[in-house]
Amino acid sequence: MPLRDVERFLSPTGRDLHASAIRRMGTVASRHPDLISFAAGYPAAELFPLDELRAIAADLLGGSGDAIQYGPTRGYAPLVEALVGEMARRDVTVSAPELLVTTGSQQGLDLIARVLIAPGDAVLVEAPTFTGAISAFGNARPRSMAAVRQDDDGIDLDDLARVTARLRRDGTPPKLLYVVPNFQNPTGRLLSQERRRALLAWAEQHDCLIVEDDPYGALYFEGEVAPGAVRPLKAEDRSGRVIYLSSFSKTLAPGFRVGWMVAPEALVERFETAKQASDLASGSLDQRIACEAMRRGVVDRLVPTLRAAYRARRDVLVASLTARLAGQLSWVVPHGGFFLWATLPPGEHDEALLERALEERLIFVSGSAFFVDGSGHDTIRLAFSAAREAEIGEGVERLARALRAGVRV
Amino acid sequence: MPLRDVERFLSPTGRDLHASAIRRMGTVASRHPDLISFAAGYPAAELFPLDELRAIAADLLGGSGDAIQYGPTRGYAPLVEALVGEMARRDVTVSAPELLVTTGSQQGLDLIARVLIAPGDAVLVEAPTFTGAISAFGNARPRSMAAVRQDDDGIDLDDLARVTARLRRDGTPPKLLYVVPNFQNPTGRLLSQERRRALLAWAEQHDCLIVEDDPYGALYFEGEVAPGAVRPLKAEDRSGRVIYLSSFSKTLAPGFRVGWMVAPEALVERFETAKQASDLASGSLDQRIACEAMRRGVVDRLVPTLRAAYRARRDVLVASLTARLAGQLSWVVPHGGFFLWATLPPGEHDEALLERALEERLIFVSGSAFFVDGSGHDTIRLAFSAAREAEIGEGVERLARALRAGVRV
Repeated sequence: MPLRDVERFLSPTGRDLHASAIRRMGTVASRHPDLISFAAGYPAAELFPLDELRAIAADLLGGSGDAIQYGPTRGYAPLVEALVGEMARRDVTVSAPELLVTTGSQQGLDLIARVLIAPGDAVLVEAPTFTGAISAFGNARPRSMAAVRQDDDGIDLDDLARVTARLRRDGTPPKLLYVVPNFQNPTGRLLSQERRRALLAWAEQHDCLIVEDDPYGALYFEGEVAPGAVRPLKAEDRSGRVIYLSSFSKTLAPGFRVGWMVAPEALVERFETAKQASDLASGSLDQRIACEAMRRGVVDRLVPTLRAAYRARRDVLVASLTARLAGQLSWVVPHGGFFLWATLPPGEHDEALLERALEERLIFVSGSAFFVDGSGHDTIRLAFSAAREAEIGEGVERLARALRAGVRV
Repeated sequence: MPLRDVERFLSPTGRDLHASAIRRMGTVASRHPDLISFAAGYPAAELFPLDELRAIAADLLGGSGDAIQYGPTRGYAPLVEALVGEMARRDVTVSAPELLVTTGSQQGLDLIARVLIAPGDAVLVEAPTFTGAISAFGNARPRSMAAVRQDDDGIDLDDLARVTARLRRDGTPPKLLYVVPNFQNPTGRLLSQERRRALLAWAEQHDCLIVEDDPYGALYFEGEVAPGAVRPLKAEDRSGRVIYLSSFSKTLAPGFRVGWMVAPEALVERFETAKQASDLASGSLDQRIACEAMRRGVVDRLVPTLRAAYRARRDVLVASLTARLAGQLSWVVPHGGFFLWATLPPGEHDEALLERALEERLIFVSGSAFFVDGSGHDTIRLAFSAAREAEIGEGVERLARALRAGVRV
C-alpha cells in the first residue's frame, strides 16, 4: 500500500513549515518566460563578471584538488581572513574566531533560529520584514514573533518601546530583534544612524540580541546618501549584542551560496557546530572563487557599476510610476538596494491585484507576505534589480492596467 | 560590558549541540601536516578529474549568467532529470517530484531530522552508525535514539525485533530506522540483499520509515561482491517507506556540496520547504558542474579508477595490519567504500590509544564516537581512502608503536 498519508510522520516543525512567498513567485516566473517580473530580488545576471570568474575558476581548478575537497566547517581560512579585512572596511573590528562562513545569509538566519530561538521565546521583527527571516525564525516555533512599525527613517523607536513593554508584561521579554538597516527588504528604507545607536542602547537596556542583516549596504546610490550612512550597527556594538550577516549574493553572484556571519566568539562556536550538522561545510570551490574575486579586486571594481545600474533602474521605475500612477499609488523612493515599496489606493487588495497582474503577465510580491501580523494588504513590493530598463516601463503599464481592472470591478 | 555569558540566550538545541568527532579530527589534522591520517573519510584528492572539471567550469562560465544566478530550491531542473536517470540505473524508478537536490547528504539527514523527528520520538540507528546522522538526528532532540546491533552481514534482525518490541512496550514505537547498507560508515559492512528485504517487511509491519544512506554504493571492489549486491532497498520499496540519500561527494568531489534525496512526493515537498528556509537553494554552479560531469561521462569514466585505487589502498592496509598486528587487532575486511573497522586487544581503550597515536603522529577516529549507547571503546575506524599507499604502511607502524606503548603502561 503506497504511503500517501505522511502527516502522521511529521514533526511539529514539519507540519507547520513556512514557505516563502517570494520563492513561490520565482516558480511562477520560471514557468512563464513572457512575464515581466518585479517579484524576486534577483541581481542583474547580465552584470555578473563572468570573464573574470571564468579565469579564477580555471586557475583554481588548475591547482591542487584541495579546491574541491572537503573543507573546514568554519570556512576556507583565507576567505575568513579576507572577510575580517572586509569587516574592517565596514568599520567593524573583528577577529577570525568571531566570523563564520555560511551558505548564504539565509543559512545565517537558520543557524540563529536553531541555536537561539526556543519554543517559549518572543522575537521582534519589523513590520514589514524579510520573508526569509519569517520562515527561518518561524520554523523554530517561537511563542511569538512580534512586529514593530516603521516610519520613513526605519524602525519606529516608540513602537519598539511599546511592543517591548507589552511583551515584558506578558512574561516573555524579547530575546532578539531582527533588522535590515540598509535599504531594507522589502521597503528599501535606510535606518538613520541616530536610530542605530538607539537600538544598541535598547538592546543593552533589555538584555536583548540584535540580528543585523546587511546584504545591500554596498549598493547605495552615490550622491544620494550621506557618507557613513550605511555604517553597520555592529561598528558601535561595544557589548557584543549584534549578530551581523552579510553575503556575496548581491555584490558578486548568488549562485555561489557564500555569506558570512559575525558574532561573539562563544556564539560563533555554537553556530559552527549547528552548521556542521546542517551541511558539514560550505562549497569549497565557491568559497575560493569568492576569496579570489575579493583578492583580485573583482568585487571592488564591480560595485560602482552595480550602484549605477540599479540606480538607473530605480530611476526608470520611479519615472514610470510618476507618469502613469501618481494619483493611485504612493511609494518610498529607495536610495540603494533592490526594492521599491508601494502603497495601494484605498479599497485595493495586494493579493487580488496580483491575480489581475498575472493576467497582464506581470508579477510582484504582495506586501502582506512581509508582515507577521496579517496586515499589509494595502502594499506591494516591486523589485527593480533584475528587470531591464526597457521592461520596467512596460511592467508599470501592465500594473496600471491591473489597477484599472480593479477599479472597474 | 562585553557579552561573555551567552548560555542564557541559547535554545535547548543550541545548548546541547552535537559536534562530530570526525570533523574534530579533521581540525587536528589540518594543524599537523606531518600527521598520517586514517581519520576523515576524505576521497583521494589526487584522483579528482580536475582537467575535465576545468573545461566544464570554463564552458559554464562562458555561457549565460544563469549559471551563477539564484536557482530553484528543488534543484537545477536538468540535474534533477539526470538524477532520475541515475536512480533508474540503480534499479529505482522515480519521477522528478520525488527527488530533491541537497547541499550534500548531510543536509538530507538534517532535513529528515527537522521534518520528521519530534522531541517525543524514538529513532533507530545501527551500533555503530555514521556520526553525521547522530548529530543531525540528535539536534532534533528525539526522546530516544536506540541502537541495533550488527553482525558481519549488517544490521542484526533479531536485535532489531528485540529493540522494536522494547520501544513499543515503552510507548514510543520507532518512527524511523537509519541504515547505510553499502560499505557502511564506519564498519565497511555490506548488508545482504535478504536482510534488505526483511527490513522492508519490518518497516511495513511496524509502520516505520527507513532512511537509506548510500554514498558508497558505486565504490564496490570489482570481483569481490556479487552482481546486484549493492542494489538499494529503495529498489524494492513498494510502499514508499524508504527515504534514499546519495551524493557526488565520493564519486566526483565533495567540495561541490551536491547530493540528492528520493522520497514520496508528499515528503519531498516538506523537505523542499524546509530547505528553502535553510539555504534557499544549493549552489547553482556546483549543480551545473555535477550535471555536466554526468552528461559528459566524467563520473562513469572515473568510477572504475576509484574502485581500483581504493581497493589497492585497502589491500595495503590489510597486508600491513596482517604483517604487524595480526595478533593484537582483529578487523572486518571491507569489499568497497573507504573504511576498515578494527577491534582492539582486551584492555585497550579507543580514546587512550588515540592519544598515544597522536604522539606518534597518527590519527584515526575512536570507535565509541559511532555508538549512541556509550559503548564501542574497544573499536577504531581506519579510513584508507585519503592515505597514499606509501603512507599506509608507515601509518600501521605508528599504530603498532601506539599499541605497544599501551601494553607497556
